[in-house]
Amino acid sequence: MVESVFSKIIRGEIPCYKVYEDEKVLAFLDINPLSRGHTLVIPKIEVAYLHQLPDDYAAAIGRVLPRIARAIMEATGAEAYNILQNNGSLAHQAVFHVHFHIIPKFKDSGLIIGWNPHRLLEEEAEDLLEKIKERL
Amino acid sequence: MVESVFSKIIRGEIPCYKVYEDEKVLAFLDINPLSRGHTLVIPKIEVAYLHQLPDDYAAAIGRVLPRIARAIMEATGAEAYNILQNNGSLAHQAVFHVHFHIIPKFKDSGLIIGWNPHRLLEEEAEDLLEKIKERL
Repeated sequence: MVESVFSKIIRGEIPCYKVYEDEKVLAFLDINPLSRGHTLVIPKIEVAYLHQLPDDYAAAIGRVLPRIARAIMEATGAEAYNILQNNGSLAHQAVFHVHFHIIPKFKDSGLIIGWNPHRLLEEEAEDLLEKIKERL
Repeated sequence: MVESVFSKIIRGEIPCYKVYEDEKVLAFLDINPLSRGHTLVIPKIEVAYLHQLPDDYAAAIGRVLPRIARAIMEATGAEAYNILQNNGSLAHQAVFHVHFHIIPKFKDSGLIIGWNPHRLLEEEAEDLLEKIKERL
């Protein structure tokens, strides 16, 4: 795998506006934010997609997301926010190192979401459940 | 806080298409999916927003997200997906119990994302860092 820019940030070879760091996690301001306070939270291990991330790193990120989100909301005065984590170019991933976006939502800035649901049919659900469960 | 429908699902009073369950986490198919395999992962505690979620529940969800995502990708054949967690009506939250969406992305279905970034200015970054760090 080709190293992404985030590995250089983790090693301190490229500077960042660091918000938080511990043994397994680094958080820093996105330099192309969708809104004031937009922050990236990444594992300190080079993994492209969430489904490849070892359990201990995944748990470490999960554990600190509420704390970092809380601080960002208080610091920016935002009352709403989205957590977004993209996997694959088709899903809007641009840097191939796992990253969670914390994106404060204001009336005129933040993540724009398009939602076009269908109704889950029973046959679809039962087929999916069988296939997912046998792979868990 | 008024109880949400997810508390009734956790207690088994409303049925769901259950994908996964452990002591702290429940995952089930979204009944109004954006794409085939769209799944919700929730903590088994009644908390509206991620920033209110206790560390142990947040870590428990973080830990299982990769595993559930992996099974969904294999089961559906999706090669891309988004993880989305919304907080507040303005940020598209509809059920006020913390939930992470796992949304497989296909060419013609899945999450639609609008991205309108600005460039982070140094003054903005330094002001934000100071305010966020003193609240962490």
